[in-house]
Amino acid sequence: MSHTPLSSAQLAQTLVLLRQQAPLVHCMTNDVVQTFTANVLLALGAAPAMVIDAEEAAQFSAVASALLINVGTLTVDRRDAMQRAIVSADQAGTPWVLDPVAVGALSLRTAFCQQILAAKPAAIRGNASEILALAQQQSGGRGVDSLHTSDLAIEAAQELATRFSTVVAVTGEVDYITDGTRTLAVPGGDAILTRVVGTGCALSAVVAACCALPGDRLQHVASACAMVARAAEVAASRSQGPGSFAVALLDGLWSLNVEEAQ
Amino acid sequence: MSHTPLSSAQLAQTLVLLRQQAPLVHCMTNDVVQTFTANVLLALGAAPAMVIDAEEAAQFSAVASALLINVGTLTVDRRDAMQRAIVSADQAGTPWVLDPVAVGALSLRTAFCQQILAAKPAAIRGNASEILALAQQQSGGRGVDSLHTSDLAIEAAQELATRFSTVVAVTGEVDYITDGTRTLAVPGGDAILTRVVGTGCALSAVVAACCALPGDRLQHVASACAMVARAAEVAASRSQGPGSFAVALLDGLWSLNVEEAQ
Amino acid sequence: MSHTPLSSAQLAQTLVLLRQQAPLVHCMTNDVVQTFTANVLLALGAAPAMVIDAEEAAQFSAVASALLINVGTLTVDRRDAMQRAIVSADQAGTPWVLDPVAVGALSLRTAFCQQILAAKPAAIRGNASEILALAQQQSGGRGVDSLHTSDLAIEAAQELATRFSTVVAVTGEVDYITDGTRTLAVPGGDAILTRVVGTGCALSAVVAACCALPGDRLQHVASACAMVARAAEVAASRSQGPGSFAVALLDGLWSLNVEEAQ
Repeated sequence: MSHTPLSSAQLAQTLVLLRQQAPLVHCMTNDVVQTFTANVLLALGAAPAMVIDAEEAAQFSAVASALLINVGTLTVDRRDAMQRAIVSADQAGTPWVLDPVAVGALSLRTAFCQQILAAKPAAIRGNASEILALAQQQSGGRGVDSLHTSDLAIEAAQELATRFSTVVAVTGEVDYITDGTRTLAVPGGDAILTRVVGTGCALSAVVAACCALPGDRLQHVASACAMVARAAEVAASRSQGPGSFAVALLDGLWSLNVEEAQ
Repeated sequence: MSHTPLSSAQLAQTLVLLRQQAPLVHCMTNDVVQTFTANVLLALGAAPAMVIDAEEAAQFSAVASALLINVGTLTVDRRDAMQRAIVSADQAGTPWVLDPVAVGALSLRTAFCQQILAAKPAAIRGNASEILALAQQQSGGRGVDSLHTSDLAIEAAQELATRFSTVVAVTGEVDYITDGTRTLAVPGGDAILTRVVGTGCALSAVVAACCALPGDRLQHVASACAMVARAAEVAASRSQGPGSFAVALLDGLWSLNVEEAQ
Repeated sequence: MSHTPLSSAQLAQTLVLLRQQAPLVHCMTNDVVQTFTANVLLALGAAPAMVIDAEEAAQFSAVASALLINVGTLTVDRRDAMQRAIVSADQAGTPWVLDPVAVGALSLRTAFCQQILAAKPAAIRGNASEILALAQQQSGGRGVDSLHTSDLAIEAAQELATRFSTVVAVTGEVDYITDGTRTLAVPGGDAILTRVVGTGCALSAVVAACCALPGDRLQHVASACAMVARAAEVAASRSQGPGSFAVALLDGLWSLNVEEAQ
């Protein structure tokens, strides 16, 4: 369970790459967070696109830089479209990322998440309750909130990462990112992140964008977490509540400074 | 048609309870207002969750603190999922709230709203045209806007409340909240609320959260209206248009002060 | 390919009409931009309504002032509902506007857009890649982004406008609006518009609102483009990034000054 901090130089390197490459992220995500997710990607220089019809989704995930699968408002139709997009992404070599929102408590998404793990996501991003439920060590959280602190899910994350050859990010007061062998820690952020809907879901989209970058995927996923954490700290210091915080968070992501990050 | 004002002490009591209990609100609402609805609940300390698959919705409404049914972008699939969620909420004793958006003019939602009234919502929140249409006294408004001032619907609200043993909130320049016997009035707010989409729909979610609280439901529903009205007054004084108003409204809900409220 | 600038007097005239008439715009648009689209219309004094069930959509487009069809997150169900709404709009004389998001690359939307052109939209609003693809001169852009500058699509826009007796707005660094004979140019705006999701989609909704106004449709559509461009310039000067820009854009639309515009 030992872990090392992500360095500022690593964060800076990922951020430069992200802005240079501007990955096109095919987001199949939930109804509640679509706008915010798109705006977070745009603020960081990436390009979002939401395509949901099964046939179009299969076409699009083959040409996108990365695919995000978020099960927050899953339906049977969306499940089938996601399945086709994952198959297509797999054939095209497009990395895909799983955000297992509220997995464990609800039947459709729990069965679906367990099933698509076999298709080996490039990364998984969830809170502690979700990662524990995905590793089948707990029965899930209270809706979308975590009942556990992130450190309680480090072992489950490492076990998941090893079993499915993936990178797992378990986020909370401290974020832990692991490939099963190495584990990076990203502290920071701000508690007000939990008072704005979609901050975790949008982070998963940034993780997907960073999975499209060449180089060390563990570093890139941890850097995605660090981008949001750093921008959140700046935003919290410049806002008066969750409304102005969400606005300042987008401005903060836009203004993330590589020199300062190093 | 006599009515009394909600007192500041009543508002303060409900607000304290809401923050203490942090109700988990299962929102089955329309496509346009999901993000804002979630952020309003989060700003007030409640917890939103949007679950829409029929089977998952039935599972979730049984464990949620309250269920919101908003028919703004109803489809046949969503109607069926809502129906299952209402049955499940009823069996579990979860209070549910109806927001009959644009009822009267459009056939699917009008039939659905009339039908589910029999399942006795804990509360109904609508504008005057919607409440009149629901009571079958008028044929509905112009889309989502009311053609009537709220006082013209007080009698219809009282009649609905009595007939279905519920609390009805008819909102407008003055909000009237009635259980058929007692009627509370909540003045205030600001006209710019009508220039931001989803302020009424989000209020209905706050009404749902407050229906989960122990004590006098009529007081709690009126307090939900007063929370939004008070925050809107502060926000209007600090903003330059509907964009900054919506941001300041979330900050204002976050900062609502119990001492000031008393 | 000659074109003339829209005059400030023309813009002012359209803006006054828009605020006087407050058109009710039936928006059948994509999942990502619903809230922002509604808020843009509200900020300008128009009234948005999103109705998506096939039967309700047909009922509503018959009474709305204008109908917007945006294919950004098209599904088979939505296609069928849109089709019924277009037929109903056509019978009722309701003008309808097409936003052919990412047409060309994806099969469902490409077939649908080509098919409904025959029902003669009042206007079409797209970026250069979309207009070229719709005119079948190119195979489409990279997701929702344009690979071409707007001037490269002027001829395709003129050809489309002539063929389908419509007004075509191709937007970019300079917007060109043509009825096939006359072509107006609207410069301005700000590059940060491309860092906020839904600015183009919301503009299409404003185009729809303006198509409901009496008078010169070419002028009205160009004025819609100019409203967003002017508000964007003000907003860019008052913001620190895409988050505060989006907020300031809504405030700017709300505050557009007819005297200044003239």
